[in-house]
Amino acid sequence: MTLGEVFVSEMLGTAALIVLGCGVVANVALGKTKGNGGGFLMVNWGWGLGVFAGVYLSVMSGAHINPAVTVGVITGGAEEFVPGVAVTIGSTLTYFGGQMLGAIIGAFVAWLAYKKQFDDEQDPANILGVFSTGPAIRSYGWNVVTEVVGTFMLVFVIVAFAGTPSGLGPLAVALLVVGIGASLGGPTGYAINPARDLGPRIVHALLPIRNKGNSDWAYSWVPVVGPLLGGALGGWAGGIIPLPEII
Amino acid sequence: MTLGEVFVSEMLGTAALIVLGCGVVANVALGKTKGNGGGFLMVNWGWGLGVFAGVYLSVMSGAHINPAVTVGVITGGAEEFVPGVAVTIGSTLTYFGGQMLGAIIGAFVAWLAYKKQFDDEQDPANILGVFSTGPAIRSYGWNVVTEVVGTFMLVFVIVAFAGTPSGLGPLAVALLVVGIGASLGGPTGYAINPARDLGPRIVHALLPIRNKGNSDWAYSWVPVVGPLLGGALGGWAGGIIPLPEII
Amino acid sequence: MTLGEVFVSEMLGTAALIVLGCGVVANVALGKTKGNGGGFLMVNWGWGLGVFAGVYLSVMSGAHINPAVTVGVITGGAEEFVPGVAVTIGSTLTYFGGQMLGAIIGAFVAWLAYKKQFDDEQDPANILGVFSTGPAIRSYGWNVVTEVVGTFMLVFVIVAFAGTPSGLGPLAVALLVVGIGASLGGPTGYAINPARDLGPRIVHALLPIRNKGNSDWAYSWVPVVGPLLGGALGGWAGGIIPLPEII
Amino acid sequence: MTLGEVFVSEMLGTAALIVLGCGVVANVALGKTKGNGGGFLMVNWGWGLGVFAGVYLSVMSGAHINPAVTVGVITGGAEEFVPGVAVTIGSTLTYFGGQMLGAIIGAFVAWLAYKKQFDDEQDPANILGVFSTGPAIRSYGWNVVTEVVGTFMLVFVIVAFAGTPSGLGPLAVALLVVGIGASLGGPTGYAINPARDLGPRIVHALLPIRNKGNSDWAYSWVPVVGPLLGGALGGWAGGIIPLPEII
Repeated sequence: MTLGEVFVSEMLGTAALIVLGCGVVANVALGKTKGNGGGFLMVNWGWGLGVFAGVYLSVMSGAHINPAVTVGVITGGAEEFVPGVAVTIGSTLTYFGGQMLGAIIGAFVAWLAYKKQFDDEQDPANILGVFSTGPAIRSYGWNVVTEVVGTFMLVFVIVAFAGTPSGLGPLAVALLVVGIGASLGGPTGYAINPARDLGPRIVHALLPIRNKGNSDWAYSWVPVVGPLLGGALGGWAGGIIPLPEII
Repeated sequence: MTLGEVFVSEMLGTAALIVLGCGVVANVALGKTKGNGGGFLMVNWGWGLGVFAGVYLSVMSGAHINPAVTVGVITGGAEEFVPGVAVTIGSTLTYFGGQMLGAIIGAFVAWLAYKKQFDDEQDPANILGVFSTGPAIRSYGWNVVTEVVGTFMLVFVIVAFAGTPSGLGPLAVALLVVGIGASLGGPTGYAINPARDLGPRIVHALLPIRNKGNSDWAYSWVPVVGPLLGGALGGWAGGIIPLPEII
Repeated sequence: MTLGEVFVSEMLGTAALIVLGCGVVANVALGKTKGNGGGFLMVNWGWGLGVFAGVYLSVMSGAHINPAVTVGVITGGAEEFVPGVAVTIGSTLTYFGGQMLGAIIGAFVAWLAYKKQFDDEQDPANILGVFSTGPAIRSYGWNVVTEVVGTFMLVFVIVAFAGTPSGLGPLAVALLVVGIGASLGGPTGYAINPARDLGPRIVHALLPIRNKGNSDWAYSWVPVVGPLLGGALGGWAGGIIPLPEII
Repeated sequence: MTLGEVFVSEMLGTAALIVLGCGVVANVALGKTKGNGGGFLMVNWGWGLGVFAGVYLSVMSGAHINPAVTVGVITGGAEEFVPGVAVTIGSTLTYFGGQMLGAIIGAFVAWLAYKKQFDDEQDPANILGVFSTGPAIRSYGWNVVTEVVGTFMLVFVIVAFAGTPSGLGPLAVALLVVGIGASLGGPTGYAINPARDLGPRIVHALLPIRNKGNSDWAYSWVPVVGPLLGGALGGWAGGIIPLPEII
């Protein structure tokens, strides 16, 4: 496939992920919704099923929909992302570009769907929380550690999926994201995906939302650097450790 | 298959969807039930598994059980709904008719199952909420936008399912509906299906339920027009954008 | 297979169902547990996954683990329950017997697991609720209607499963039970299985549990008659209505 | 495969299980997290999806990731754990060793991810609860009974999985663990795995966590002996009772 098709594929998948992902946070966090106070497990399912939808839409490009996965594929030693698309700086940036544009579109669409709820919300923290992650306890170093652990788990286990056909298709990675969210989302809200955090943060900065407050750019590097590092480590480990190739 | 079989198939599937869908709202919203206050995620699972049951019952006709899906199939450029059933005004109306009758039957059966709880309920909003959707913040234009977004996601991703065999069968669309509900159900209660909303609203208007209040016909066009528009757009986009046809 | 094998198969499957099913109610309802107040959706998942385990253990006999399913198979017109086991009064009673004995064993094991919690519980209603179902609003006629509707949905959709291979195996019926529980469990606690209710009620009557109160035998016929009637109707309808046989 | 590969495989799988399992308890139990108070069902999903991830990583060695499963395989009469790895004292201890080291690594990583939350926590019971199980009502004998029942269910049903291909792969055992947790986790927190409890307890004893209190060694034998006994019984029963070998 062409780089243009890769770009569109990743853009579509990431957009779907972010519409459903930012959407579920809006439903739980904003004041006047039907799902207000629905709980963290509901947030986990929303993001996991966002991945589910996003993977279906981006299967042709390998369904990365996450720069940390793209980096993990590279550190794992792949020579091609998908048949016919060699790993180069250009193709890597094409993945990143499609993911970032998709995340921006997705956050915009989620805002459209919850427009009246955003207008009505008084608490800037709730508004920013719909778009981007933030720490429960601010400590940049340890926040990075948490994001590294979560993203390592994501990419390392995805590598193992490849060797264990299970008939689940996109459901496997969706469930993995539900699990990582429930288990490792407590300290930082599990960005585990730089595009998922940075794209919506840009949208937050640009949109004219009453009471939106600032976009917390001081924290914005954590959910970019942590996931990229964790993804790189996960892909590298997956490349050298003997993982299942049978069954 | 014949148009009569299409009608019965869609009727059965939609009836099952609505029995379980309206049922779960009754369980959570009505005062004297065992699931009262069970939360929005429980509502999402109830509707999703209603789709699950409904799809099994209507596989022969393509398991639309939703006029917005039927419209999306048409705008996607299909020439036949299922082998032997050409896309015509007559076959389209057959789908719509089966879906509407099924929704009416389903709402009636859900009312039967919760008869004593309806008799005992004091709040008209809880009673209407079991049958039909309503907005958290009333704003017809933005409410339409939310329904368009939710139904677009439904139909567009369903188109992608077709190109990605996953071994999940009807579970895939069930999980998609759980996700759309959790993520995009906050502002309007995610009708995303004109028959799901209009059929039960008619039943609400006809049944002799104490304290039922009015059927909010002023809002009733929103969960019809929004989903039809979103479904048409989703099917159209699925027809022109390169979606997965491999794996 | 022999009738003895049928008996053991149904007994094992039903016992597993009841251990997990009564167990989850104990966890949510009894005072001093780690899952106390875990909510109705947790109860639904517990019973659904009890079905999941039970079906694996009883696949050889067709995994009825429910007299209402056995009756539905008969009214659906089957000549054999499984290859080599003709539908006769004797084989039917063998199914019923294995199911009842399994339910009794299962309830006893669940009591063993929660022995200290039962000893400590003060409220008889919580204790009986672990074993058997009861109505949120007592009205024998309407309680029967609710059980008929729930069991009809169970058996009618199971018939449709047979014509729609989905790769889900026992998960399909497990999810169906999660959905029926969430959606139709509000008024009566969804027995939808005579053995599930009567077996544990007998155990409740026999066990020396402090503060257990009476076993509410006045209600005990409802979760027997309702499910048998609903199962019979569901199997009969599944036999005459054109359900999927393709895909 | 070699014993060294078995060791690494079990270590990786158990580590992933414990990272996600201890992680979800940290998220729900520790004071300053985003999932605080998320409920018992969220804990069940976290552990179940920890099993899901762990099984993918350890498929090559049979995915025991639990000494009780290893013991159940032995009492079930297996001559080889996996092709080429005979059941001997040496291979058994290799399984145990990999599982224990994995559990220790996993608990350490979960602590890293929640480092700031541990620093901030005031209640020693919450801290120990992240690492190891404890009884809701302390009664060593009955606590053992509960763990025996839970682990018997785990191993006995896993044996049945082998005879019922369902296309679910690692999801089947993950869902079984969700169900056992929801249903039988109330009295003791469902260790059902000696390595899951003992490994993290050792980590708790060693780590310099403020306010951590003691490691409750008096109880520590219960979640070792109970699961080993239950696993042995489950494997033995699975070996002699006619379980499904068809479909």
